[in-house]
Amino acid sequence: MKEKIWKQISEVRTKSPLVHNITNYVVMNNTANALLAAGASPVMAHAQAEVQDMVNIAGALIVNIGTLDEYWVESMELAAGRAKEQAKPWVLDPVGAGATPFRNQVLQSLLKLQPSVIRGNASEIMAITNVPGGTKGVDSIHESVDAVSSAKHLNQQTGSVVCVSGAADIIIHESRVVKLSNGDPLMSKVTGLGCTASALIGAFVAVNPADPFLATVSAMAFLGVAGELAARKSAGPGSLQLNLLDVLYSLPQEEFMSVIRIEEKNEE
Amino acid sequence: MKEKIWKQISEVRTKSPLVHNITNYVVMNNTANALLAAGASPVMAHAQAEVQDMVNIAGALIVNIGTLDEYWVESMELAAGRAKEQAKPWVLDPVGAGATPFRNQVLQSLLKLQPSVIRGNASEIMAITNVPGGTKGVDSIHESVDAVSSAKHLNQQTGSVVCVSGAADIIIHESRVVKLSNGDPLMSKVTGLGCTASALIGAFVAVNPADPFLATVSAMAFLGVAGELAARKSAGPGSLQLNLLDVLYSLPQEEFMSVIRIEEKNEE
Amino acid sequence: MKEKIWKQISEVRTKSPLVHNITNYVVMNNTANALLAAGASPVMAHAQAEVQDMVNIAGALIVNIGTLDEYWVESMELAAGRAKEQAKPWVLDPVGAGATPFRNQVLQSLLKLQPSVIRGNASEIMAITNVPGGTKGVDSIHESVDAVSSAKHLNQQTGSVVCVSGAADIIIHESRVVKLSNGDPLMSKVTGLGCTASALIGAFVAVNPADPFLATVSAMAFLGVAGELAARKSAGPGSLQLNLLDVLYSLPQEEFMSVIRIEEKNEE
Repeated sequence: MKEKIWKQISEVRTKSPLVHNITNYVVMNNTANALLAAGASPVMAHAQAEVQDMVNIAGALIVNIGTLDEYWVESMELAAGRAKEQAKPWVLDPVGAGATPFRNQVLQSLLKLQPSVIRGNASEIMAITNVPGGTKGVDSIHESVDAVSSAKHLNQQTGSVVCVSGAADIIIHESRVVKLSNGDPLMSKVTGLGCTASALIGAFVAVNPADPFLATVSAMAFLGVAGELAARKSAGPGSLQLNLLDVLYSLPQEEFMSVIRIEEKNEE
Repeated sequence: MKEKIWKQISEVRTKSPLVHNITNYVVMNNTANALLAAGASPVMAHAQAEVQDMVNIAGALIVNIGTLDEYWVESMELAAGRAKEQAKPWVLDPVGAGATPFRNQVLQSLLKLQPSVIRGNASEIMAITNVPGGTKGVDSIHESVDAVSSAKHLNQQTGSVVCVSGAADIIIHESRVVKLSNGDPLMSKVTGLGCTASALIGAFVAVNPADPFLATVSAMAFLGVAGELAARKSAGPGSLQLNLLDVLYSLPQEEFMSVIRIEEKNEE
Repeated sequence: MKEKIWKQISEVRTKSPLVHNITNYVVMNNTANALLAAGASPVMAHAQAEVQDMVNIAGALIVNIGTLDEYWVESMELAAGRAKEQAKPWVLDPVGAGATPFRNQVLQSLLKLQPSVIRGNASEIMAITNVPGGTKGVDSIHESVDAVSSAKHLNQQTGSVVCVSGAADIIIHESRVVKLSNGDPLMSKVTGLGCTASALIGAFVAVNPADPFLATVSAMAFLGVAGELAARKSAGPGSLQLNLLDVLYSLPQEEFMSVIRIEEKNEE
């Protein structure tokens, strides 16, 4: 599977897909830079007067509710609705699911528009599936493994590929489960690397819309390996944010292959 | 007092308070990263449909008017009103006070909601108390000492701890005055380090709501020392932004103790 | 001309003009930091209740439509209208021109308010002048030279100085044409360096409102040289973003003079 994943990384670099982001204010700069470093072409647009037109020309859409409000929610629904109509892949990032009733309502409404992929931390994935007792703002208080049954339930209910990210990343679709064990604890001290993950999934699903599971695994593996390598040379979270972009930009195949830690399970 | 301050820094690191920020677009990424580096857990949320719920679960609220508009002002008032109802600490950052009549009106309205702490540069603190002739957009054209009488007046009028930040940071509450003399001139060339100061005050007041004066002194000392140490190894403002996060993340007690410059006065 | 350009750079550093930005969420932090590093004093403000007041006290206005929406467009028109009334210089950055009908309509409306300078990439400048077949979101798919006739047409139609930026930067006003050939390909992998260019033009035109052509050439030369020098010591786009700020802050005259590559043409 490692070769397949590397092929996806190469295709993002060469095809440079246009990725439309409706995302939060905190991470817009980072996610745009991560998409550029990975070879993609990001565009951020949220106006109700143009989001559908932007979806029309993009390869994929990311909807991230991190700093949602009433206007932005309408834009998200317009954009995701258009993506659904056109069978264009779109990624849902349920930032802060469970933190407020408003976020929960918005997420239920967005789920009806059938995201191709849902990526969240363990607390967020558990909150979407109504497991009680679970969130602290936008940071997870659970391990990825805690959310596996929620993720399976969510996949069955929606048909979306579900990715639980954290110290381990677990990607689930029907009987397929992949666990990735790269990354570094320091990554949780840089804001929005989860959002960056969702943005990268958008780039990968844009070049491979037929296989959103492989696209998600590839994006998460790319970010995990790059983050792990970047952390090795970082004195703290400030350096890590910078080094991560440098590594995403230049990571060679050989290094990727030697660092990736992946486990596949087929539960059929 | 240095030992007391270090204890606050340790508590933020270990308790990881949830800090709710309604802040400006320019600095959201930095302030989230600074809060994470200091050990806190930041959340940014401004929707009128959820700000009160977010205040309910947060340890403290920061209201920063840097890129305010009519919608956001209503959100700020809802959130600060809820904080007041719940006697939960909240910090007001009056960015650009005096620059436009709109900012001045909004600030008068927010002051009625009794912030626990007000932190601004000298020009901003003077503008709030109607000292004429004072601001240039969002940058100060005065020294901190110029604003001491304004700060005392503001403290008497509101009961809020008042912090004037700049080359020297002066923190005032009733008869207590602390002056901190750390930092580096290069810090004024990185956008939003004042906003970062306000965000850190939020983290400190969340773990010590009973003593917002000590919390404010501790946050300002932490940022001043970290900024000074970071500047020593920075080739310019780009490196400083990064190094500051690394130092906030890893600053050891011994180094903090040897670098902090603090003067206390009790004017009773 | 190199001496004249350096004089502009020095004047921005010493006069520290207040530059009012109505710009996009992605780049606000970077552009504020670039303006500070160059010596200017940035302010970001978009509220309809204050944009005209902010234009009143600023030296120049930048209008960047990168993440426009209906509310922001009204603010942009209010602010640009006030700048026109006061004959105060303002810069239009037509981010994503051609990507959606909404952007095109907004741009036609803003052009009527007579920007002093228009800066875009080749695809954007071609899209404004209705050359078909031209854009991919916000990234250019053309070389600067492809847009020269569009830029001349746009200059004739509006009277604005027109700058096409890219691997080469071409600045056009009436019979005057300047071509700058600094920079580095890595700069296209950092989001928003075009937006940074527009912001810097704002700072330069604020200190030299009588000659927006020289101001634009100077800003673009400064950024191109700084970017080229910063790229030399950067391992990727993450480091470049940081190093660029350091170089803008500290670039000495001698180094600037030895690195700048400029060609002037007078086509009268």
